[in-house]
Order: sequence, then structure tokens, then C-alpha cells
Amino acid sequence: MKAQVLIRPKAGILDPQGIAVEQALPALGFGGVSNVRVGRLVELDVEDPEQLDAMCQKLLANPLIEDYEVLTSS
Amino acid sequence: MKAQVLIRPKAGILDPQGIAVEQALPALGFGGVSNVRVGRLVELDVEDPEQLDAMCQKLLANPLIEDYEVLTSS
Repeated sequence: MKAQVLIRPKAGILDPQGIAVEQALPALGFGGVSNVRVGRLVELDVEDPEQLDAMCQKLLANPLIEDYEVLTSS
Repeated sequence: MKAQVLIRPKAGILDPQGIAVEQALPALGFGGVSNVRVGRLVELDVEDPEQLDAMCQKLLANPLIEDYEVLTSS
């Protein structure tokens, strides 16, 4: 089974990458952009999707500063 | 409009983060995992979604080594 894990900084946590992107876009001529958040995307094939949550908790995401969302497609 | 940009290493491009995760998971007791790829997730609010492709080409993704996928939701 294919799985996608979307990992994003928790609300309220400083996101320097997001700030950098948000400031760079107007300089490249792109207006009307706000609330930029930069996180991680992990894609994997997994035999037992039940393990995904524990994988996120233990390795893929940092529960202190990140939220994660698991999407699976058979 | 909310947009999500999923940025992933191109097929065939070395993905050291993906390899590291794929090797670490069994050590934490998670079996049955393969083809791990680690990329970036950029989420933003954008007024003109037509600009998203150019944003990806110019800043968000590196077209030489990365593919990107744009998802929008109103």
C-alpha cells in the first residue's frame, strides 16, 4: 500500500523556511501570497498501514513541534 | 485560495533522506516498508493560483532534481 505523510510545523511554531519563502516570492514578482508553511513529505510503500501512526510518532515527525497527516491509497 | 505543493526527488535521483529513513525504520521495529522518498511540502494562501506553476519553477522546487505537484482547494 502506498502512503503519504504530510508533516508541517505546528501552528505558533516559528517556521523560518516559510518566512523565507514568503519574503522571496514578492521579490520574484509573485504577489498575493500569504501564510506560507514549509514542511516535509514522506512517501513510502508499507505492508501494514496500522504501523504508520507509530512510525510518525517515533521517527518521521517531531511531535513537539510538528503535526502530521497520513494519507493512504491502495 | 489554499494551495499545497508536494515536492519530491525525481525518480533515479539519489535520496539520502529517504535511504536514511528506510534503514532506520526496521531498527525501530517497523518492517514491511520500502521505496521511502522524502520531499518537501509547501502550503500557502494564494490570490492568483495561475502563478503557482511559475512559483514552483522559479523558487519552490529545483526543476533539475525535483518534481512537483500542485493541489488547490478553494
